[in-house]
Amino acid sequence: MKPVKIGIIGLGTVGCGTLTVLQRNSQEISRRAGRAIEIAMCAVKNIDKKRDPIANTVKLTNNPNQILESSDIDIVVELIGGIEPAYDYVTHALRNGKHVVTANKELLAVRGKDLFQIAQDQSVVIAFEAAVGGGISIIKAIREGLAGNRIQSLIGIINGTSNYILTGMKENQCSFNDMLEESQKLGYAEADPTFDIAGIDAVHKLIILASIAFGVPLQKISDVNRIGIESITYDDIAYANELGFSVKPLAIAKRSQSGIEIRVHPALISNQRLLANVNGVMNAILVTGDAAGRTLYYGAGAGAEPTASAVVADLVDVVRVMTSDPENRVPHLAFQPNSISSLPVLSVNEISTANYLRMTVENQAGVLAEVTKILGDHEISIESILQKGTGSHEDVLPVVIITQETVESRMLRAIEQLESLDSVKGTITRIRIEDLN
Amino acid sequence: MKPVKIGIIGLGTVGCGTLTVLQRNSQEISRRAGRAIEIAMCAVKNIDKKRDPIANTVKLTNNPNQILESSDIDIVVELIGGIEPAYDYVTHALRNGKHVVTANKELLAVRGKDLFQIAQDQSVVIAFEAAVGGGISIIKAIREGLAGNRIQSLIGIINGTSNYILTGMKENQCSFNDMLEESQKLGYAEADPTFDIAGIDAVHKLIILASIAFGVPLQKISDVNRIGIESITYDDIAYANELGFSVKPLAIAKRSQSGIEIRVHPALISNQRLLANVNGVMNAILVTGDAAGRTLYYGAGAGAEPTASAVVADLVDVVRVMTSDPENRVPHLAFQPNSISSLPVLSVNEISTANYLRMTVENQAGVLAEVTKILGDHEISIESILQKGTGSHEDVLPVVIITQETVESRMLRAIEQLESLDSVKGTITRIRIEDLN
Repeated sequence: MKPVKIGIIGLGTVGCGTLTVLQRNSQEISRRAGRAIEIAMCAVKNIDKKRDPIANTVKLTNNPNQILESSDIDIVVELIGGIEPAYDYVTHALRNGKHVVTANKELLAVRGKDLFQIAQDQSVVIAFEAAVGGGISIIKAIREGLAGNRIQSLIGIINGTSNYILTGMKENQCSFNDMLEESQKLGYAEADPTFDIAGIDAVHKLIILASIAFGVPLQKISDVNRIGIESITYDDIAYANELGFSVKPLAIAKRSQSGIEIRVHPALISNQRLLANVNGVMNAILVTGDAAGRTLYYGAGAGAEPTASAVVADLVDVVRVMTSDPENRVPHLAFQPNSISSLPVLSVNEISTANYLRMTVENQAGVLAEVTKILGDHEISIESILQKGTGSHEDVLPVVIITQETVESRMLRAIEQLESLDSVKGTITRIRIEDLN
Repeated sequence: MKPVKIGIIGLGTVGCGTLTVLQRNSQEISRRAGRAIEIAMCAVKNIDKKRDPIANTVKLTNNPNQILESSDIDIVVELIGGIEPAYDYVTHALRNGKHVVTANKELLAVRGKDLFQIAQDQSVVIAFEAAVGGGISIIKAIREGLAGNRIQSLIGIINGTSNYILTGMKENQCSFNDMLEESQKLGYAEADPTFDIAGIDAVHKLIILASIAFGVPLQKISDVNRIGIESITYDDIAYANELGFSVKPLAIAKRSQSGIEIRVHPALISNQRLLANVNGVMNAILVTGDAAGRTLYYGAGAGAEPTASAVVADLVDVVRVMTSDPENRVPHLAFQPNSISSLPVLSVNEISTANYLRMTVENQAGVLAEVTKILGDHEISIESILQKGTGSHEDVLPVVIITQETVESRMLRAIEQLESLDSVKGTITRIRIEDLN
C-alpha cells in the first residue's frame, strides 16, 4: 500500500522527537502498520529559528494552510500546544476531512466537546494518547483495555515537574524554591512554572481521564478542586517520612454513590504503596475497575521521545482506521504476518548476568582465598561477599558471593571448579541477578 | 444495532467470571461497544456438574458443535485451556468464519502459528489479551501502545503462583514446601503445580510476548532457557534481602546485537526497583522501548474477574472489527457519544480523607489537650501525633497530627477553630492523605 502522508504543525521538543522516532524506527513502524508513514511537510512559526538538525530533513513552511489544505495529506499532527491558534488549526483540519493527532491536553480539556463533535460529523478521528502520561498508553489502557469494567477510581501522578520537585526536596533535603530553580535549570520546569506547580496541567489531563473512565462529559476546569504544591515545605516532607508517608502530587477521580470526586492536590501516601515509589519526573496512574481490580501504569510522562512514542502509536492507530480492509487490522503478533522475521536465539551460554552464589565451606583459614582465586582465574569480579558465622566453632560455614556481570559459560565452569574443591561442601546454589538497566 | 451473539466453551473459574462481568456491566459495555454482547450458549463437558449459580442464567450444552456451527453466533470464547480439544474447537470456529477470543497461552505458544494463519485466511480475528497478565492489558500495550518503538527488552513477573510462593517464603520466613502447600490450600496453586513452579506457564506467556515485542516468530519451548523456583530456599531469600535484593520469578526477553535472549528463572533484583515490590499473586511487566523508555504495567495476573476483564475487552475489540462502520470505531471519550451521561460532581466539602496537620503551638502544659479536644468536638479521630522537641526550652514547638478519615467541611471548621486558639501560632498546614484503598 502507498505511504500515508502526514503534516506536522509545530517543531518544538515533541515535534522534533516525533521526526526522530518516525525516521529512526520507520522500518519497525511500517512492519507494524502495514504502510509507511511519510512526513510531507512541517509548519513552524519561524523558519529561520535554530532547531534540532532533524528539522533539516523535512520540508518546512511557515504557512500551516499548506498542510491543512493539502489534498495530499491525510493526517495532521498538532504539536504547538495552547488553545489558540491550535483550535483553529485543528478545526480547519477536521473540516477538511483530515484525521488529527494531538498532544494538546489543554485544548481537549477546554474545547474537546466541540472538537469531538466536529470530528464525528466529519467521520474522522482525533487521537490524543500523547496528551496524558507521555509514553504510557494510559488512554488506550482505560478506553480499550478496561472496556469490560465499571471503573471506580483513578489516582495518578500525572505531572512530572511537580513530582520531580517533591522528590528532589526529599532527596536533597531542600526547599521548594531551591528545587524549583534546579528544575528550571534542567529544563524540567518552564520559566513560568504555574501550569505545572499550581496543578493546572494535571487538571487538564484529569478532565480527559475522568471522562474516559466514567463516561461523563469533559468537566469544567472550575469544577475540579485544585491545590498546588507550592506550599509544601521540606519540614512537611520530613515529618511525613518519619510517619511512613511520601508527599506526592496526585490527580484523583473517584466514583461514589452520590456522584464523582475530581481533584488535584499534593497528598501523603504510605511508603508501602508502589505510587509512593514513583520518583523524579516519572508518572504513574493507578486505576481500580470492578473486574480487573487495581492496575497500575508507569513510565515517563513527558520528554521528546516518550511523548513522540504516543504520537506515533496514535498515527499507527489512525492508519488502521483509514482503511476498512481486514489486512489493516492490528496484526495478531503485532507485526504484519509477511514481515515477521527470525532473529537468532542466543544460547544460554552466551548471556551475561551478575550472579548470587551460596556455598558451604570448611571453617578454616585460606578457604576464601581459594574460592576467590578460582573466580579470579575465570575473570569473574566479585561485587560483595557475605560470610556468616565467622569466629564460630562450626565445622562448616555458609558464604554468599555476589559477582559482577559474567558470561554464563564462564560462570558455570567456575562453579564446577569450585564444587571440586575439598573445602567446598556439596553443590553451590547459583541465582542470576538482573540489574534491570 | 442488534446485539452480537457469543458462545462460550468452558465454564470454569474464568468462564463463570466472564458471565458475571458481562451481566453485571452489560450497560457500561454496550455504552462503550455501541452494541450489546449477548451470550447465546455455553458449552460444558458435564451439564450436571455443580458450578457457580451464574451458570444457571445461560443456555448450556454439552455439545460444543452447537456453538461452533451455529449461524447465529459471531464470536466463540474458548476458556477450557490446554491444547486438545481446544485446538480442534478453535480451528473449527475459525473455519466457520467465527472470531475467537481465548485465554489459552499454551495453545497459542505451541500452535499459534497454524491458528493465526487459519484466522488470516478466513479473515477473522483471534483475540488473546487474557492469555498473559490477567487484567493487565499488556498485549495491547506492547502491540499498539508501543507501536512506534523498537523494543529492547521485557522483564516480567508473569506467573502469580510463583510470585505468591516466593513472597510468602520471605514474609513468613518459611520453606518452599510450606508455602506451596499453603498456595494449594488457597487455590493459588494447582494440585499438580508443575506448570507454575517449574516456569512452564511463564514460558508459554513469554513466547507470546517476545513475538509481539520483537516481530519474531513464536519461539520453540525448547529454545527458552527455563529454571523453576523449586530449588530456592528460605536462606537464599534471607541472604538476598540482607544484601538489598528480592528473589523474583522473572520472564526475560532481550534484544542484543547478535540475537535475542529468552529465559524464565528466579532472579535477584534490587529492592529499589518497582518490580522487587510486586508481591503476592500480582504480576508486572517492565518494557523498555527506544522511544518510550521504561514503562511498567502492574495488576492481577490471574483470577476469575481480572481474566474476565481481558476477555471482555477482547470481545469489545472484536465487536469493533466486525463492522467497518466508522460509528463503530473506538469512541473518542471511550463511551459512544450518545451514551455519555452526566454524574454530579461532588463539592469538595463532601469528600472524605484522612489528613496531615502541622501546627506550631506554645510550649506549655495543656496545649495538646486543647487541640485534641477541638478535634474531638468535631468528631475527628486522631490516628497519630508527632510532637517534636518536647522537654526543650523553645517557646513554640511543631506538632504533627494524622487524623482518621473525616469529611472535608468538618476538617476545615476544626482547622479554623484551632487557628483561633491563642496557643496555636500562625496558620495550620493541612495535606490530605490518600490511603489508596
